[in-house]
Amino acid sequence: MEMFVYGIDVGGTNTKLALFNGKAMLKDTVVIPTRTDAKGIHVLPDIKMALDANMEKHGIKKEQVAGIGVGVPGPVTADGVVNKCVNLGWDSMNISKQLSLFTGGIKVKATNDANAAALGEMFRGGGQGFKNLILVTFGTGIGGGIIIDGKIYSGATGAAGEIGHIPFMEGETEKCSCGKCGCLEQYISASAIGRIATKILEERTEDSALRKYQTVTAKEVYDEAKNGDPIALGIVKLTGDRIGRAFGMLASMFNPEAVVIGGGMAKAGQILLNSIDDSFKKDAFHATAGAEIRLATLGNLAGVYGGAKLIFDDYGV
Amino acid sequence: MEMFVYGIDVGGTNTKLALFNGKAMLKDTVVIPTRTDAKGIHVLPDIKMALDANMEKHGIKKEQVAGIGVGVPGPVTADGVVNKCVNLGWDSMNISKQLSLFTGGIKVKATNDANAAALGEMFRGGGQGFKNLILVTFGTGIGGGIIIDGKIYSGATGAAGEIGHIPFMEGETEKCSCGKCGCLEQYISASAIGRIATKILEERTEDSALRKYQTVTAKEVYDEAKNGDPIALGIVKLTGDRIGRAFGMLASMFNPEAVVIGGGMAKAGQILLNSIDDSFKKDAFHATAGAEIRLATLGNLAGVYGGAKLIFDDYGV
Repeated sequence: MEMFVYGIDVGGTNTKLALFNGKAMLKDTVVIPTRTDAKGIHVLPDIKMALDANMEKHGIKKEQVAGIGVGVPGPVTADGVVNKCVNLGWDSMNISKQLSLFTGGIKVKATNDANAAALGEMFRGGGQGFKNLILVTFGTGIGGGIIIDGKIYSGATGAAGEIGHIPFMEGETEKCSCGKCGCLEQYISASAIGRIATKILEERTEDSALRKYQTVTAKEVYDEAKNGDPIALGIVKLTGDRIGRAFGMLASMFNPEAVVIGGGMAKAGQILLNSIDDSFKKDAFHATAGAEIRLATLGNLAGVYGGAKLIFDDYGV
Repeated sequence: MEMFVYGIDVGGTNTKLALFNGKAMLKDTVVIPTRTDAKGIHVLPDIKMALDANMEKHGIKKEQVAGIGVGVPGPVTADGVVNKCVNLGWDSMNISKQLSLFTGGIKVKATNDANAAALGEMFRGGGQGFKNLILVTFGTGIGGGIIIDGKIYSGATGAAGEIGHIPFMEGETEKCSCGKCGCLEQYISASAIGRIATKILEERTEDSALRKYQTVTAKEVYDEAKNGDPIALGIVKLTGDRIGRAFGMLASMFNPEAVVIGGGMAKAGQILLNSIDDSFKKDAFHATAGAEIRLATLGNLAGVYGGAKLIFDDYGV
């Protein structure tokens, strides 16, 4: 009897389901909208229906599903309890138990989405070959997932790796989305870079290729830096210094083998890596500065790979 | 046959040996000088002689010693290998194997001294009741030990928890002892506080009780703050804000149940706790701000308790 595993990544807008065979080969993906109305009560039933349809499509029986691994956008404790998932409208809920009930007893494991992505990148992405790594995702905010000895580290209340809200800068007066001031994501997230660039363009008078854009985002900054624009290069250097310092913090505390860069900004590629590398080597404590900095490679499939890996772990895959 | 365990804390100046009975009650302590000349070649033989003498004193046979747990001032990998221990003059060495050979086959486990202290505080000190905690020791420098799920977390190369060398401040030009600029211990270690106080006293003209001391150290600052001296209170507040921000960083990443304050500065007690608490609650990400801040209680015995705990772990004590 051939065995299968599902990896699921529940996002605030869409939910991605992925079917893997017993050798962890991705066979199919399905994307459904995440209905967050009515306190997110439809989310798990919708997943159950999509699973049923996909199993029917592939002629898979319930007994053939070794398990379902789910990542959700909120803190999840080691035993699968979500405590407040604002993006989905959920209060406290045991996803593992609940989804297992809906699916007639299929084993379900759950974790935070950033943790799932970190596990996925270790399993089949940019973190392959490492067992101790930190994934830092650069997008609207900064997310983080921590893998220790090949397993997700979720902390005492499931909130470990909240890297975006490290109190990074002293004396900041502007507020972060979380209500505090000086959080790391106020300086190095893709949104922050766009904001910083706009401010610098206002303050300076020099010509810059960046001035031709209506709105400047991190993408334009890295693109124009690649073209040699001095202002863009300056922003890339400033940001790289800060990312390097942040990675130095992570390294001093966790002493990982690698830090993997994920999220949309990873697409900037080598110029981003180079900008971080110098500053990381300078700022990281010598005994921890050997950590490698890598780019994530799975894009938005990292979460489903990581979800599936939660199940594959039980089978030594 | 009654069983015993030895906990050993190897310091740069002295080495402390402690005898515990099978119920982890401290029965005796011995302090010997640490001879660091000749690349530290005498350190382990001296320990072996002190162990022999103590076993003879108490009529303990080799078979009665369940194991020896050792903390050393350097990074130690999970399998007991020290890689450069500058304070002892050691290069790379497998302490566990080496000391086990010297003692005729007694089981030896080794870890970093700060990790041992963290484990000791969890076992019998200020961290009792917690399984996920971080010990931060405030002395000449800042040390750190991380306990995850009741076990020491030592990272990929044994250097996890190098909290003192977190790159804490942007734009610092003064150098830390490690050669970098802006390390956490440049702002919150006991030495740093003395240095900062001296500088503030030079810059300001107001009268202050601190001016009566030839040399101002952290102790005088906390003592005079307790007496209500405004300048001392200002330094306590500034330092508390920074410690709170640093603890916020630790909490955002590790999501521990508790942060335990050790080292000489812990003697400042409640005024230190109060100065940290406000800033920690303000700076820590909300999902991680529930971590409790506690004072260490074992003083300079934390390391030997932690060393012994490495052995007691194998016996479920």
